[in-house]
Formats: sequence, structure tokens, C-alpha cells
Amino acid sequence: MNSPMLPREKVFRDPVHNYIHVQHQVILDLINTPEMQRLRRIHQLGVSNLVFQGAEHTRFTHSLGVYEIARKICDNFQQNYPTKNGGADGLWDDNERLIALCAALLHDIGHGAYSHTFEHIFGTDHEAITRQILTDPDTGVGKVLRGVSPKFPEQVASVIDHSYPNQQVVQMISSQIDADRMDYLLRDAYNTGTNYGLFDLTRILRVMRPYAGGIAFEPSGMHAVEDYIVSRFQMYQQIYFHPVSRSMEVILTNLLGRAKELFEAGDFDDHYNPRLLDPFFNHNFTLRDYLMLDDGVLNTYFHYWLDYPDPILSDLADRFLNRRPFKSATFTTASKDLLPKMAALVEQSGFDSRYYTATDSSFDLPYDQYDPTSATPKTQIEIMQLDDTLEELSTLSPLVGAITGKVTGDNRFYFPKQMLAKPDAPEYTPVIAEFQRYILNDEIIDPQILSR
Amino acid sequence: MNSPMLPREKVFRDPVHNYIHVQHQVILDLINTPEMQRLRRIHQLGVSNLVFQGAEHTRFTHSLGVYEIARKICDNFQQNYPTKNGGADGLWDDNERLIALCAALLHDIGHGAYSHTFEHIFGTDHEAITRQILTDPDTGVGKVLRGVSPKFPEQVASVIDHSYPNQQVVQMISSQIDADRMDYLLRDAYNTGTNYGLFDLTRILRVMRPYAGGIAFEPSGMHAVEDYIVSRFQMYQQIYFHPVSRSMEVILTNLLGRAKELFEAGDFDDHYNPRLLDPFFNHNFTLRDYLMLDDGVLNTYFHYWLDYPDPILSDLADRFLNRRPFKSATFTTASKDLLPKMAALVEQSGFDSRYYTATDSSFDLPYDQYDPTSATPKTQIEIMQLDDTLEELSTLSPLVGAITGKVTGDNRFYFPKQMLAKPDAPEYTPVIAEFQRYILNDEIIDPQILSR
Amino acid sequence: MNSPMLPREKVFRDPVHNYIHVQHQVILDLINTPEMQRLRRIHQLGVSNLVFQGAEHTRFTHSLGVYEIARKICDNFQQNYPTKNGGADGLWDDNERLIALCAALLHDIGHGAYSHTFEHIFGTDHEAITRQILTDPDTGVGKVLRGVSPKFPEQVASVIDHSYPNQQVVQMISSQIDADRMDYLLRDAYNTGTNYGLFDLTRILRVMRPYAGGIAFEPSGMHAVEDYIVSRFQMYQQIYFHPVSRSMEVILTNLLGRAKELFEAGDFDDHYNPRLLDPFFNHNFTLRDYLMLDDGVLNTYFHYWLDYPDPILSDLADRFLNRRPFKSATFTTASKDLLPKMAALVEQSGFDSRYYTATDSSFDLPYDQYDPTSATPKTQIEIMQLDDTLEELSTLSPLVGAITGKVTGDNRFYFPKQMLAKPDAPEYTPVIAEFQRYILNDEIIDPQILSR
Amino acid sequence: MNSPMLPREKVFRDPVHNYIHVQHQVILDLINTPEMQRLRRIHQLGVSNLVFQGAEHTRFTHSLGVYEIARKICDNFQQNYPTKNGGADGLWDDNERLIALCAALLHDIGHGAYSHTFEHIFGTDHEAITRQILTDPDTGVGKVLRGVSPKFPEQVASVIDHSYPNQQVVQMISSQIDADRMDYLLRDAYNTGTNYGLFDLTRILRVMRPYAGGIAFEPSGMHAVEDYIVSRFQMYQQIYFHPVSRSMEVILTNLLGRAKELFEAGDFDDHYNPRLLDPFFNHNFTLRDYLMLDDGVLNTYFHYWLDYPDPILSDLADRFLNRRPFKSATFTTASKDLLPKMAALVEQSGFDSRYYTATDSSFDLPYDQYDPTSATPKTQIEIMQLDDTLEELSTLSPLVGAITGKVTGDNRFYFPKQMLAKPDAPEYTPVIAEFQRYILNDEIIDPQILSR
Repeated sequence: MNSPMLPREKVFRDPVHNYIHVQHQVILDLINTPEMQRLRRIHQLGVSNLVFQGAEHTRFTHSLGVYEIARKICDNFQQNYPTKNGGADGLWDDNERLIALCAALLHDIGHGAYSHTFEHIFGTDHEAITRQILTDPDTGVGKVLRGVSPKFPEQVASVIDHSYPNQQVVQMISSQIDADRMDYLLRDAYNTGTNYGLFDLTRILRVMRPYAGGIAFEPSGMHAVEDYIVSRFQMYQQIYFHPVSRSMEVILTNLLGRAKELFEAGDFDDHYNPRLLDPFFNHNFTLRDYLMLDDGVLNTYFHYWLDYPDPILSDLADRFLNRRPFKSATFTTASKDLLPKMAALVEQSGFDSRYYTATDSSFDLPYDQYDPTSATPKTQIEIMQLDDTLEELSTLSPLVGAITGKVTGDNRFYFPKQMLAKPDAPEYTPVIAEFQRYILNDEIIDPQILSR
Repeated sequence: MNSPMLPREKVFRDPVHNYIHVQHQVILDLINTPEMQRLRRIHQLGVSNLVFQGAEHTRFTHSLGVYEIARKICDNFQQNYPTKNGGADGLWDDNERLIALCAALLHDIGHGAYSHTFEHIFGTDHEAITRQILTDPDTGVGKVLRGVSPKFPEQVASVIDHSYPNQQVVQMISSQIDADRMDYLLRDAYNTGTNYGLFDLTRILRVMRPYAGGIAFEPSGMHAVEDYIVSRFQMYQQIYFHPVSRSMEVILTNLLGRAKELFEAGDFDDHYNPRLLDPFFNHNFTLRDYLMLDDGVLNTYFHYWLDYPDPILSDLADRFLNRRPFKSATFTTASKDLLPKMAALVEQSGFDSRYYTATDSSFDLPYDQYDPTSATPKTQIEIMQLDDTLEELSTLSPLVGAITGKVTGDNRFYFPKQMLAKPDAPEYTPVIAEFQRYILNDEIIDPQILSR
Repeated sequence: MNSPMLPREKVFRDPVHNYIHVQHQVILDLINTPEMQRLRRIHQLGVSNLVFQGAEHTRFTHSLGVYEIARKICDNFQQNYPTKNGGADGLWDDNERLIALCAALLHDIGHGAYSHTFEHIFGTDHEAITRQILTDPDTGVGKVLRGVSPKFPEQVASVIDHSYPNQQVVQMISSQIDADRMDYLLRDAYNTGTNYGLFDLTRILRVMRPYAGGIAFEPSGMHAVEDYIVSRFQMYQQIYFHPVSRSMEVILTNLLGRAKELFEAGDFDDHYNPRLLDPFFNHNFTLRDYLMLDDGVLNTYFHYWLDYPDPILSDLADRFLNRRPFKSATFTTASKDLLPKMAALVEQSGFDSRYYTATDSSFDLPYDQYDPTSATPKTQIEIMQLDDTLEELSTLSPLVGAITGKVTGDNRFYFPKQMLAKPDAPEYTPVIAEFQRYILNDEIIDPQILSR
Repeated sequence: MNSPMLPREKVFRDPVHNYIHVQHQVILDLINTPEMQRLRRIHQLGVSNLVFQGAEHTRFTHSLGVYEIARKICDNFQQNYPTKNGGADGLWDDNERLIALCAALLHDIGHGAYSHTFEHIFGTDHEAITRQILTDPDTGVGKVLRGVSPKFPEQVASVIDHSYPNQQVVQMISSQIDADRMDYLLRDAYNTGTNYGLFDLTRILRVMRPYAGGIAFEPSGMHAVEDYIVSRFQMYQQIYFHPVSRSMEVILTNLLGRAKELFEAGDFDDHYNPRLLDPFFNHNFTLRDYLMLDDGVLNTYFHYWLDYPDPILSDLADRFLNRRPFKSATFTTASKDLLPKMAALVEQSGFDSRYYTATDSSFDLPYDQYDPTSATPKTQIEIMQLDDTLEELSTLSPLVGAITGKVTGDNRFYFPKQMLAKPDAPEYTPVIAEFQRYILNDEIIDPQILSR
């Protein structure tokens, strides 16, 4: 492996970790690639800044943060648990450090602008693209990785897709308590100005330890890990699943969907043409095309569409750029059957219900035990007892036990604000009155049940 | 005036002020205008995030922060110094509150993408545009302001341009210690993760007080004000004037300059055409054109230009998007004469020196006394003594006295990194060797002086 | 009522709340009483600073913090929920403010040095003493309160003992989410440097609201309340129940117990006489005697006893002053029967087991629903729905549901560190070997079970 | 040297540094000595908590903090500037680490209760006592140090008294920017809840470097050092020299002075006898006597004296325990001559002016260059240029230049609050009226000057 150290470490000032310490030339070179720099133009939390205004941070700062946490884990492992036989003793082999650091830094490299929404509409796959960026010999990242060794790009990619043999490295980057999650919880909390996401990173780092099966935690750190799980749970409930953020995502989905429909109908004249999106509308894009996109590029075309002749496209573009969200109400399996009726009432009120209603279901599994029968079995969190036996976290913590294996979240039906017009408002109509009969306390409920 | 209160105050979560409290319908409506929402897409610190990675915050969050500080000042004035005769007693007339709050919120509304650089190249004027946005009856902002009273837009504009008669309101928004500066220092410090910009906002707000001539400070707050001045001084020296940020601005200037040159030569084909910039290249833009621009729009066209046939344009676009800054060295009045020679050496090395060299002079006057003979006399900071006499700050504080009236900063000459190639590097040439003779310890110095 | 406002509010700088705002002359006068100033000499967390070194804060700063939170609650109630008919509408009657503030400030006034331990040994009762300090016409506090109105001392006392009719006032000071708990969690977290105790005070204050039955919370604040409950749970598990803090309390108990035993045996000569403790040893103390005591007074006498002829007393004094804790192991109902045998082994090793062993059971009920059959029924936390119906917190929050009604904590058996001597240590003996057979992984377990 | 490492590092939670990391058995043993534990009972800021209520921290936490900073400095030096020839190259010899760490931890070990006041009255000398504690073979500290090597106690003591030959070690503990000052500024800021004392510790530690003459700083850290100097300046002006803290010190001085006077007059009966102070009143104390004292011991005797027959002693004890400060006014060289007259007016008002008036002059030299002609020449702060030449800080920083060599502070005359009674107060008298003629805006000014 060819991985010289920098003559003196270089630091990047960071509000969450104070400093990001870079010690390998390879890491510095990776940071300077166009693919990494592109992440400076993609918001970490998509549209959440439209609700939590401070959430203006990007995938770039997050990626450096994940790298820094991984670096600290390696330092701890190397100082306290160094292997004497290449890892056969279940301890840490510092030859794994550079692979771990690169995987940490690059784990999000394939994400695109408004990532999940974009993927949904255009069928892109950020995981496949990540692998491509790493292993393509012509990307900046690919060149730097190849400079370490010919197999290195593939190795780093295999850490990110979990197939790398060393589970310590894999779990450091991706598990139920990994460098990725720890950085985004702290960073999102810092930037939103909420403190739900705060937990004791220093303590968690102190109590992590390698073992033959991956990474475990010392008993003295049980409460810090518990606190992390609860923090993550709360960030999902309060930040990531905020109904208004989801509303803006719904609008974005409908906006891109409408554009695609119009495009496929051959409807875009040159004046409105989203040149950098063309390859995606045409289902024929290269990696280079993908790397040209960022939040600002998409927003630029939304500006074009503000005066596009199609009123749906232009209105949705305006709603997105100028933050005019839909309203919403929750629904359950029981009340789901009411949605077609309600959508029809929206349609009757003059809105195209394909683009002016939507449902969104946001659920998270805050923590789960390992279940070999699951489609995606989780690496459970293990507490290593004084006698080296492992105890799974939820068996020790009643708090974690309470949320283990339970998904939490809600289903929401989205619709235009006008549908909630007050009776004394000019836009109030009998159709709207009928619509409102289905909603009580922000929930969709069958009016027949209520009237009993 | 038509300015109803909200039935219940609405809050925006903010990492710097915890919550932004909105109590007037007008303020909420202003926040929801397209012109305000546009500020979400313009970085507060331009390109500084390329050096201090956390500096990803925008003019939107800053604007709400300035509003919030102004609101707190009004609350303090109204609680502790309410006038009994419409302000004739030099105390606070709360009828001024809404004007002050609107001016605070809107003071930056005219800023464009990469503001100063853009103005420099295209001759736009953000102050004139601010006035236009406020007073144009067709902008979102104009409509909301007009809803308060026909004269209201003009009144708010006059606060921002300092011509409003009530100096308390004017100084609250714009003076040497105003809501604007206080918010940006705190916010920039928070987001860069540095602590130079921290000062005791709560204490300063407590000791501010209205008087007939504007705003003064109680003696017990003298040290807090002093601390604020020092903080501001340090933020300029360490954050705002960072040589690498200025390098990226220099590149941006040259990039836009080159594009303009090519455009004026009739050189852009449709494929590369920056549609939303057209009106500016053509020196014929409307307010609506201006409001279409943001950081992302400019970056989108820089992407277009990455494969533009002109090697200078494409290289500068790549340098800007992918953060490849120029290097620099300081110069003085004495060494300024050496710059043409050095630029010639850069040219000899194969670079077009018009686009590959630049000078930048960044100087700040951290604080000054009022000087009626100055072109732009400053409102000096007054400490009100127990017997109501005023003492100017620098006469009381030796620390402030030390920097009063003294500009600080430096002049830098920028050039490609290759010019600093080490003798053992392949790109090293006799021309480069000659170039390096002019630089010692990052300063440009006449080699003849050194050889003596 | 005679309660003039201060001409201008007075502030006390506070690291947790930034400023404590005092607006009533009565509050300022109360703070200046000897009884309040005495609290500056009593640690808030007893001996916890011997484990979390920063926990050096006192009941004085905590008391001002509780006052400040209560003040903020009153401000919110008065601004958003003012009664129009003296509280008959279930809204806030601001005539209750001064009573609430005084009760908040004075709620801990009866606490003594090393409060719980001292009470245990000397049979004092801090609740009775609190009432006495408030209602005695000769205390500083009594004089100030009486100055408001003759019935005022009794009213404030009745808030503290929960018998005051207005449940909003009572619950503000004492409930499962009150000003007292909120201040101590934040303050203890700040001073210990841990972040388990952090929760979103500002948000909780925003969502608190009065109703006819006391204080409820708006639905939008449900997660903030949940977070508070979890924070409190974690502070108990990690800070308040720390085994080493409890060890130092055990030593203090045994030290005071030994002194009492010696005193009752008539054993103290003048030289060692703890003059200010005399009345307590003699079971005949006045309120004035009680108010003479603080942490430093007790520590002073412990210094006297360092060279007292009784080796147990002097050793325990040395252990306490110089932080030489006992070791401990947990036990359960099942293993409890082993303790006499273990104590006998300690005795065989040369220690008086009355003073060199102890048990401590620390359990907390983090949250509970109201249970009318309970000896001390809890005021449950109510979330007020949009249609004004109340929902108890644990029915809405699975996280809180998981810990509702469940006590958590542990039982520990304490003994000298020598009992854990390693086999190669000089003090290791067969008796010690036998003792160690009962302990596995810090738990007491019957060796017969282990050997199976 | 005999200094084994701990099998695994031990940490102490700390609110300022997050964790204190202990890696040597010697350091752990030193922390556990009675002499170190005693520092838990001595406030770091004496009586400042009576003004800044949060300032309840002790010399113990500060001492561990100084140790931790020194440890980080050693880590940086060893990682980046290790010597290859025992320090002859001017780089860091890690054999000095343990000496440096011990000196850092123990530098305040000789401080007593209410240190400066006590020394003033009883003629103790904390520097001499520090040396005694370190080198006495019978103290806990002495034993631990001797265990390292016979010469070790003397070596550590010589670091503290500046006579140790290695200037890197000496300056780390004691210079104008040392571990001691850096910890107390940060810790006092944290506990008072002010932010004047904040500076960028991490950055300063990064830019410190050893050189042959001691410790210098890299140019990139110049502003961080500048910020530290300004912070220190402001802490002195705003926290350490607060007029009310000094008032309480004045009362303490007069209280102890009166007690001494009475004692020397043979006036203490057994009942009031401050047993642990006896040796000091008798001018005949041992080291053990000294180590028995702490803040609480002194306060205990002040409690005794509350009902002492001498009204001056009992009143001063009450003033101190119950925080009833004197008032003050500033004076200058010019107005100093008025003080006897003013003291006479205090005397005429019924106060013993020896105990009811006082002067206090508090001045600090925030920073100075090295001046060989000074009685106590300062080690100036050196910035090491790229070409290894040294530049003294104030020549580079105009801000520091402004305060270099200039003492700042003030002189105050203290007197009972009654002397400022308002004309409508019952205690107002012609004598008081006369007294007040000498004071304008809290300054003492000759009435004849004013009347002109």
C-alpha cells in the first residue's frame, strides 16, 4: 500500500468536532476531488432547512465528520486494543485504518441532489453510484484510491456495501451505532439548534472496543449507548419526520413527476429545457451527468419553470422555491379507505389530485436485536461483560427494551391548505365543508364513527 | 397603520437565538415572500465555507436573527424607557417598533448571489435594489408593506438608507454596534466553530438605552461593548479576511470577468448559454431577473462552462467549483512596484496574467469616533454617565482606544500554485526560480534589498 | 399585600440561566436573609463532588434557579393565559405570582448540611424546619414574609407542603415536572459536565399551561416533556446513584453514628468537642442551633476527630475528609441472606462490621401515573389535546410508558477495599479469599449456585 | 525514576476539559493525598461567589485542570517536536513529562483558606509552604514524590519556584501564557457564566512549540494568543477586580484583624476559641496546623463569633457570613488626601474607622515585554517566524501593544452603606451629608474643585 503521511497533520475547523485532523496524504487528496467538493452543494437534510432554518449544512461537512469519528475510533483501538497477530486475537489491526478512514469519508459520495426524491422519480441508485465513483478509474476519487493499490478501490467499496471481511471496519462505518449516525445526530442537532440529538460522544468512543465479531461496548458505557439510542429515536420523531418537511418533499416529488410527464409528452421547448436533467428524463445518463447535479442545479430549473405554461408545473415550482407547503392529517390502516373520497373532494375543489394530494408514510425502527429471519438483519449492540461474555443492549436497558423492534412514525395524507379554509373565509365551499368532516384533531376519522 | 398581532406568537427554531419570536402578521407575511425565501439560497459568507467548512448558513437565517435582536431591543426600550410624549423626551416610542422590525428583517433583501463580486462585474447596486424591492408595488415584500400603510414601504426604506428621522431606529439597524453586526458576528462564529466572535449579547441588550440622539450605553456595560468591538476586530482579521477565501473570490471575479468578455465577443452558443444571466451580460435586466439569481444558479452555469472550449473559462470554472485556489503573498506600498514584473513571470510561465494573477486589498476600520470631515462619518458609541453626560467609548477603554481609527488588513498578490513549485518538482523552471526570488516568508520583497 | 416592585430589576449572573431576574423588593430581601445566605455553604449534591469533581455548587444557586424558572412560568401564564375572573376560568391569576416565587425561592431553606445523612442520625426533619423558618417571626425570612401580610408566611409554607388550594402554584413548585426538578437537572448536568440532564427548558416553558386542575402541557411539547423524563431517569442512574458517592455517604453515616455513640457514652473531652453539634447530640436543639450548621462546620469537627483516640472515629473521619471510599457489590432479595456471613468475614479481618460494612438501597420511580390508592399519589403529567381533553403522558409516549411505575436502582453492600485484595498482595488472607468467593462481576452471588 | 503507568488510563469527568486523563500511578497517588483533597474545601476565587454566584469551584478542580492542560502540551510536544539528543537541539525531552505534570498538579498545594487575606493577617507564605509540602518526607505528597526518586521532590519544587533549568517546563507552568492561567480563565468563565474568559485553548495548544529558550508560538496562532491576552485583561477588569468582591475581602481582613487584636489582648474565652486557629494567633504553627485549615473551618469560627460580646467582631462576622458588604468609591493620587477626613466622618457617625473603612488598590499588568531591569522580569511571549526568528507578541499585535506594560485597575475607599443614606432616610445626618459632598459618580473628588 502506498499511503504516505503528511509531513504535519492538517486540520479543518469544524463546529461539531472543533477540528478535523487529516494525517494521510490520501485523505487530503480525496477531500480535494471534484466528487467530494460536489457534496458541498448538497444539503445534508434535504428540505429540512425549510422547517429548521439552521439546517443548512451539507453532506460535505457531514462526511468529514464521519471521517473524524472513525479516526478517533481507530486511535482508541490502536492505543488500547492493538492486535499482536494480525487480528487473529480479535483485536485491532491498524493496517485496516486507511481502509476504514476512506470508507468513512466516502460513504455518502454517491448521494445526489434531493437524494431520495430524485431516486424515486428517475430510478437512480446511490449505492450503485457510490461503488462506481470509487472503482471508476477516471473519477478523481478512483484515481486517488487506485494510487494506494490496485485493489484498494474495491476494498473500500466492499466496506461500504458490508461485504468486507473485517467486521470491525464494517461496523465502524455501518451498524446501529456507527460513525455515520453519530456524526449526523450531533451535526443535525447543532445546526437545527435542538438538543434532542446530543449524547456523550467522548464517552461512547472511550467504551467501544473491538472483538472477534466486530465492535462491542464496555459495561461502564451502557448508559451512554442507551442515551444515544434515545437521542436517535427523538431526532427521528421530531426532526426527520416533521410533517412540514415531508410536505415539502411531497411537493418536490410531484414537481419532478409533473416535469417528467411533460417531458415524456415531448412538451419542453428549449427555453425551459433543464439541460443538465436531460439525460435523466431520457433514461440515459452517465456518471459524469450524475455528478453535474446538485441542489442548486435543480433549483435553477425550478426557476425556469416558474413561468412555464403548464399551471401545475409552475405552481409546484413556486410552492417549492417559495415554501408554500401542503397541509396534512394522519391516517391509519382503518381510515386509509377514506383517502380516495377525500382526494375526490380535493379534485372537486379544482385541484388535480394526482399532483395536489399525496400520502407519505415515515417510520423508523430505532433499534433492533439481530434477527436472522429478517430481510435485513441488524447488527445488534453488544455490551461486553467483565468476564468477556456479550449481553445484547435491550436486555440490560429497560429504556432501550421499550423501543426495541418497534417501528414508530406515522402516515400522512397531504392536500392544499385551502381545504382547511374556515367557514367565514371566501374560499369556503360545501365541498370543503364535506372534506373537513373527515378530520378531527389533525387525524382522518370516519365521520360515521364520530357521529355515533 | 394596519398591523394586526398574530393570535399567538409563532416561533422559528434558531441555533443562535434559540427561538425567533414572530408576533406581527406583517412579519410573518414578509418572511413568506419569495424575496425573503430567495435569501435561503444565498450564503451569508459567500465563499468562506470553502475555508471554514461549517459556514454554510445563508442570508435568510441571518436576516431573521437581525430581526430577533431588534425585537429584543424594542422590548427592552419599551419596558424600561417608554416615552410619555411621542419621543419628545428622547425615550422610546413603541409606534416605531414595526418600522424597526421590518427594516431589520429586510435590510439585506437586495443582496444577490456572491454579492460583492457580482456587483463588481455587472454593475448592480444592492442598495438601490433593496429600495426597489421594498417600494415596488408588485414584489411580495412591496405588497405586504403597502398593506400596512401607503407610506410604510418608503419609511422602511428610509431606515435602511439612514434618512429616517428617528435615530434610535436607524442606529438599531445600522451603526457601529447594531442588530446586523451583532447577529452576524455570533452566527458566523457559531457556524465556523470559532469563538472569536462571541460576546455577551444579553448584557449588551440590557445596557442599551435610547436618548435624544439615538442609542447609548450604560456605564456598567462598557466592558461588554469593548468586548464586542474586539470580537468584531478579530473576526475580520481571522475569518472575513482569510487569504484563501479571498483567493476563491479572486477566482470568481476572474471567472465572471472572462465569461463577460467572451459573451461580449459574441462567443456563447446556446449550449453554454447562462440563460438567467443573459440580461446581465446584456446590461438590461429587470428586478425580476435579479431576483431569479442565487448561488446555485451561478454554480449551475459554472457547471456548463466546465467543458466550454475556452481553456481559461473552463479552468477557472473548475477551480471555483472544485476549490483549487491561487496562492498569494502580501505586498506593501513599497513592494507594489514589483507586481508587474511578477505578473510578467506568471505570463511567461504560460498563464494569461489577466486571469491568473490578481491583487486584493482587504482593510477594515474596526471602530472610529465621529468625524464630521469624513466622507462617511461614523456614529460613535456613547457611554451615558450617571449624570447623563455622554462619553465616547474609546476615551474610556484603552483597548478600544488602541484600535480606534486604525484600519487593519493587508494587500495580497494572487498567482497560480505552480509558481511556488519546489526545485525538485518537474514543473520547476528558471522563470519560476526567478519569481520565487521576490517572496520571503509569504511577503513580496525586492530581492535587491534582501541581497544587501 | 405589601409587595413593591424594585425601581429597576436587579440581575444575578448565573451560568445555567444566564441571568436571574429579580423584580420584587421582597425577593431581594429574602435573598439577603441569613437563612438564604447559609445555603451558599451547603453543597447541592452532598458528597457527589467527590466523584464528579465539578459538582461543587450549592443549594443557594439552585434555589435562585428554581425561582427564575418559576418566574418564567408566571410570565408565560400571565402573557398567554391570564384569567378574567380571579381564576374561576381555570386560567392564571397573577395575584398568585409572589406566593409562587417565594415558595420557589424558599423550598429548600430547611435543608441542613449533608441533609439526608444528618437527618437519619439526628432525627431532624427538614420539612418541619422549612415551615418553622418561614413562619417564625424572628427569622430573617419570617420577618420579610410577614412584611407582605400576616398570613403570607403561612401561605408560602402551604405551597411547599402542597396544601395550598391553587394547584397551579403547587404543581409549579412540586410535581413530577416542576421548577425544582428542572433546575437541578440542568444545574447538576452543567456542573458535573455530563449531558444526560439536558433537556429543552425553553420549549417546556412554552408548552406549559394552566388549567382548572393545575398545569398541563400542549401536544406540541409532548416530545420535550418525554425528553425531560428520560433525562431525569438517566441522571438518577448515572449521577445521583453512583456507587462511589453512596460509599462516601455510607462513611459519613457511620462516622456521625460513631460520634454519637461515643458522645452518648460521655466520651468527648472538651478538646474534641463539636461545640455547634452539642445540641444535636443532646437531642435538644433550637432553630438557631440548626441554622448554625453547614458543610464546613461538620467538616471542621471531622478535622478535630482526625486525632481522636478512638481509632474507628479517627479512621472514618480521615476516610471522609480524604476520600477513601469503601468498595461495594450489588445484592438482590435472593442474595441478601449472604450479607451476615460476609459481614462476619469483614469482622474476622479486623474491622468492626458495624462501622465497616453497610448496605445502601437506592431506587427511584422516574415517573408514575396518578394512583389514588398509593400512599403518596403522584400528580401525573397531562397533555391537553386540541379539544381540551387531557391525556396522561405515558399513554402517548412509548418511551415514558416503558419506565412508568417502575422503580429502578440497586442494593449495594459496602466493605473495606482490603477485602478485594489480590492473591499476590501482602494483605491477602484465607478469610479474604473466602469473602471473594461470594462476588462475581461486582455482584454478590451464592458460591453454591456458581459451583453447580 | 520509578513511575509506572496505570494499566489503563483513569479519567475524571470535568466540565471544562470534559475529561481529565490520568496515566501515571504517581499522579493518581498525588490526587489521593490529604493535601490535594484539602483543596476541595478551598474556593478557587475566594469570596467571588458572593458576587458571581456560580463561582463555587475549588482549587482542587483547578489543579486537575492545570495538570490536564500540561498533559496536552506534553503530548503535542512529544508528537511534533521530540528531541533526538536529550534536548540539546532545543526540542522536547519527554523525560521531563512527569516533572512537568507533578508541578502542574501541585502548583497551588500551599494555598490556604481565603489565601491572600489570611497571609496578610497571619504572615504565612504559601510559596514557602508549597515547597515544604513537596519536600517534607511526612506529607502525603512528599511520600509519593520521594517514591519516584530521592531528588524528585526538590525538582518539582524547583519548577514551581522557577529555578529548574529546563525553561520549557518552567514556562509551561508559569509564564504569561501558562497552563495555570489558561485553566483558571476558562474555569472561572465557565463557573461565573460569563464569556469574557473564553479563548481558543485547542488552537493555542496546537501552536505552542518548544525551543531552546523555552516555549514559543507559531505565527498562525498569533491571533489566538492575542485573544487570550485580551480575555485575561477582561477577566481582571470584570470578575477579579469587582468592587463588591473586594468589599467582602476588606470585611474579611478587618474581621480577622479584629479577632487577632482581641486574641492578643487575651480576650478569647474557651467558648469562642477558634481552636484550629490558635497556632496562628500564637505565631507558632506547624505544617500540620496549616493543613487543617480550609474555608469551612474559618467560617465555623465566624459562626462562633456571631454572638461574641465585642460588637465589632460579631458585626463583622455577621457581615461576612451573611453578605453585607461595604460600599465604595474610587480615589486617585490627587484625591487620596481626602481619605483621612472621610474616615473621620465615618468615625463621627459611630463606626470604628479602623474596622469600618478600608482602602483597596487592585491593579494588574495584563502583559509585558521582558525587562531585565524589572524587579520581576516577565517571560515575554515569542512568536516564532517561518525562518525561526522570534518576534515579541506586542510588536505584531496592535491590540496587545495597546495594553503592554500598562497596569490597569483602581483604588477604592470602603465604608458602611449608611454613609450613602438618602436625605429622606431616618439615618441621614449632617455628618453623612458632609461625607456625601466628597463623592460624585462613585468617585471621590474634592468638593472645592466641584464648586468652582
